[in-house]
Amino acid sequence: MTLLKPAQKPAPAASIDPILRVTAPDMKRVNDLVLSMAGSNVELIPEIAEHLISSGGKRLRPMLTIASALAHDYSGEGHVKLAASVEFMHTATLLHDDVVDESDLRRGKRTARTIWGNQASVLVGDFLLGQAFKMMVEVGSMDALAILSNASAVIAEGEVWQLSAAKHLTTSEADYMAVIDAKTAALFAAAAEVGPVIANKGAAEREAMRDYGRSLGLAFQLVDDVLDYGGSAADLGKNTGDDFREGKITLPVILAYARGDEAERAFWREAMENGRNDDEALARATALIHRHGALEGTVERARGFGAKAFDAAASLPPSAARDALLSVVEFCIDRVS
Amino acid sequence: MTLLKPAQKPAPAASIDPILRVTAPDMKRVNDLVLSMAGSNVELIPEIAEHLISSGGKRLRPMLTIASALAHDYSGEGHVKLAASVEFMHTATLLHDDVVDESDLRRGKRTARTIWGNQASVLVGDFLLGQAFKMMVEVGSMDALAILSNASAVIAEGEVWQLSAAKHLTTSEADYMAVIDAKTAALFAAAAEVGPVIANKGAAEREAMRDYGRSLGLAFQLVDDVLDYGGSAADLGKNTGDDFREGKITLPVILAYARGDEAERAFWREAMENGRNDDEALARATALIHRHGALEGTVERARGFGAKAFDAAASLPPSAARDALLSVVEFCIDRVS
Repeated sequence: MTLLKPAQKPAPAASIDPILRVTAPDMKRVNDLVLSMAGSNVELIPEIAEHLISSGGKRLRPMLTIASALAHDYSGEGHVKLAASVEFMHTATLLHDDVVDESDLRRGKRTARTIWGNQASVLVGDFLLGQAFKMMVEVGSMDALAILSNASAVIAEGEVWQLSAAKHLTTSEADYMAVIDAKTAALFAAAAEVGPVIANKGAAEREAMRDYGRSLGLAFQLVDDVLDYGGSAADLGKNTGDDFREGKITLPVILAYARGDEAERAFWREAMENGRNDDEALARATALIHRHGALEGTVERARGFGAKAFDAAASLPPSAARDALLSVVEFCIDRVS
Repeated sequence: MTLLKPAQKPAPAASIDPILRVTAPDMKRVNDLVLSMAGSNVELIPEIAEHLISSGGKRLRPMLTIASALAHDYSGEGHVKLAASVEFMHTATLLHDDVVDESDLRRGKRTARTIWGNQASVLVGDFLLGQAFKMMVEVGSMDALAILSNASAVIAEGEVWQLSAAKHLTTSEADYMAVIDAKTAALFAAAAEVGPVIANKGAAEREAMRDYGRSLGLAFQLVDDVLDYGGSAADLGKNTGDDFREGKITLPVILAYARGDEAERAFWREAMENGRNDDEALARATALIHRHGALEGTVERARGFGAKAFDAAASLPPSAARDALLSVVEFCIDRVS
């Protein structure tokens, strides 16, 4: 599965290596800062933070901030703190999400809540969010603060919305896209937009990076939704079928439900709304999703957003950082290939 | 029980009326802003927010921000947004606290988590915190942002600490004071300090208001701890004995434990560390606390902090706002009279 026509392709295609390479020196400092800001005399905090930090996340979001700043010729120090803030916002969200979703595994490791309890997960999430805001304030850019604080409220709003809509098969594709726009794409958008902001670029550059991040985030989430019905826990480092077992209505389900007959819809209602979601039900759900081409349908939409993201970053002047931003788009989509 | 020598007393003594009166016009706008910023298309958010807003809290913290700004001749608009931010920070903390403490009642009303569940409480708390930061950013004062974001991290750190220390009777008075310094006094201090900050006053004024808020917050929390062993649910709008049943080591317990003999200490360990905290145990705990004068000991300390708060605010030039800040100190302490 490839997203882009060969002529458009950045080289090397479908790899996270270019952004790893471009951001490596700064990401080293981001990682040091993350460790130091997760420090506390209250032992539980560094313990939990270290568990999360060592859990093998790709740190995609802070890399976007670094690469976006570099692609706009930023030469100051603020991007490191903003990138660490973005990572803390993300980590805080994961901690709270695992509590809300009652998840036991994330990226193949036990979640913090199963080790230290829901209480500690809630509070350490709050602490990391507080530390994120402290770092942002230190950078001293009101515009960056406005972007990231807005994202923080939007993400939480999206989560609440998903909580209310979670088990309703009446969720429309548009409703679902609005949820992931808030809960995933908003942070990607903010992470990318703060690059031109601290580099003192104009409205056009900000808008391009916001569009890039937002479209990339939407594509990323849709691909995640596909992987939840298509991979194995070993591949993904998460439980395949998690979304199903948690009764989460994602786009593959929405499409399969819309394309299904009355008997199938009754099955979906029983599974998602009444919690009949054992392994047998998951096998049937996966079969229905495949039969109706719901994964392909979801990937097509992801590709559409990927193309938008690509175009938005392609408007930047040529640089290694720009090429890194471009290659991330294909990397995100090619996870399903 | 009176805190202050008659000569020092502001008139009228021991009443919240002076600060209500001084802040009334601005608090009307704070309340409107709180309602509007708690609005969302996601129905659950205004529903939960309204439950909290109508739950009869005194709004002491935002009133401190307003009165502190007025006492420093502030004539702009920023204090209203900062006061609303302070209230949202507090409300978010309450939502998360109730989840962490598994509380069923707050101010005599069912907690949000018992009506809408822990999940919604966590996420709506996150949303309100995001909205708080958005409002702070709109005010445009980096110093105010630094103070409030720092308080946010400190509060969460204090909560985690309390979680780890909660059931250990080895908690010393100093440890406990450090916890309430973080989880209660930090927000009082920040709420008061942002007043002179947005009024462009100097370091001395900032320090005076920070000391005022911090000392008031410590006194307030100690009095709360006393009330938990001394009032009735009807008086307090909260369950008396909550702290005991939640195994929270507060100062009255620390003092009674320190002053108790070995048999009493065994009882305390059984109750607080092993959860033998039924009504009979609560009755014995309350009797021991009274026998050892642990409530009086706690109130004495509260008075000490009250006196510090009083002196800090007394350094301000005379004004109705200053007198209101002074009378709040006595009001807080006289709740135990």
